[in-house]
Amino acid sequence: MTAHQLVLATRNPKKLAELRRILEPAVDVHVLGLDDLPPYEEAPESGATFADNALAKARDAADATGLAAVADDSGLTVDALNGMPGVLSARWAGRHGDDLANLELLLGQMGDVPDDRRGAAFVCAAALVLPGGAEHVLEAEMRGRIIRGPRGSGGFGYDPIFIAEGHNMTTAEMTPEDKDAISHRGKAFRALLPLIGAALH
Amino acid sequence: MTAHQLVLATRNPKKLAELRRILEPAVDVHVLGLDDLPPYEEAPESGATFADNALAKARDAADATGLAAVADDSGLTVDALNGMPGVLSARWAGRHGDDLANLELLLGQMGDVPDDRRGAAFVCAAALVLPGGAEHVLEAEMRGRIIRGPRGSGGFGYDPIFIAEGHNMTTAEMTPEDKDAISHRGKAFRALLPLIGAALH
Repeated sequence: MTAHQLVLATRNPKKLAELRRILEPAVDVHVLGLDDLPPYEEAPESGATFADNALAKARDAADATGLAAVADDSGLTVDALNGMPGVLSARWAGRHGDDLANLELLLGQMGDVPDDRRGAAFVCAAALVLPGGAEHVLEAEMRGRIIRGPRGSGGFGYDPIFIAEGHNMTTAEMTPEDKDAISHRGKAFRALLPLIGAALH
Repeated sequence: MTAHQLVLATRNPKKLAELRRILEPAVDVHVLGLDDLPPYEEAPESGATFADNALAKARDAADATGLAAVADDSGLTVDALNGMPGVLSARWAGRHGDDLANLELLLGQMGDVPDDRRGAAFVCAAALVLPGGAEHVLEAEMRGRIIRGPRGSGGFGYDPIFIAEGHNMTTAEMTPEDKDAISHRGKAFRALLPLIGAALH
């Protein structure tokens, strides 16, 4: 018997790899990314909250494929930026998905922000939408702070400039497994696992 | 008898021109910019609020020159960005004072933000610090919305993409006098005029 299939509504190969690491060993499931499936028209990520965006992406994927779909919307909320980049994290530099430009912009914006006002959190909303229409969404965060220059080559997005509370390495310097254990995305999707398992089996 | 001198703590020639228009006809005063005076070490604008920054700039200028000093800290607070760029308006694109880069970045960040969530306000904190140490700070705003492309060549900063409530032109399309009549900076400094007049005469 083959594993069940689950769609992850993303075209980001690093996000797909991260969630395969978290989901596939835990439930008997094969996670497909959007690049593994016939294309469909994707709605823009224009929601005002992580939860709105995650639900919209999972809904679209479930409707288009007839499979159970999960989606993640996550981002960095920086205290000195009133919680931004937030839902705009992936397009902070003005166009979508340029990690280096986003990170350099944030460092520039924070150039004069003193050490005691550099708190931040990575936030993840994890959504599950079933073909029958049932919907779930959960949110988790990882608190930390923004440093003054990038360190490490792992992870993606803002990982090289973020140090989680109680740690000394950036999340880009941690092993994938160590990062997953504390990350916003790891926490949110682990909390979603029982619902995914119940839905598929 | 010559007019009294007042320092405006700015090196921005457009801001200097705007405030000369507002202040010089109203009180018998000649407004000097920082480029009209011997240089002194200026503190970075690292405050968390407009009022903090305006007071710090006016204090520095009054201390360095022995003259009464006014300063403005102003910026654009965008609803969909949780009130940012805010105090970072002038360095939103990561370095200080690149108006075009700041404006283009904001348009890019707002690319997917629908029309009903494009509200914004220009906010100005106007500070007056006297050589004897007395300090005043006042805040005023101009509500409006962010459009999708620049219009007009007047004003500075984000003026080409901002339309004030009850108007159809951007603040970059208005005459200087029409803009001053409704602007955050006009309102804040007009409110400060009686205090400036009382301090100088």
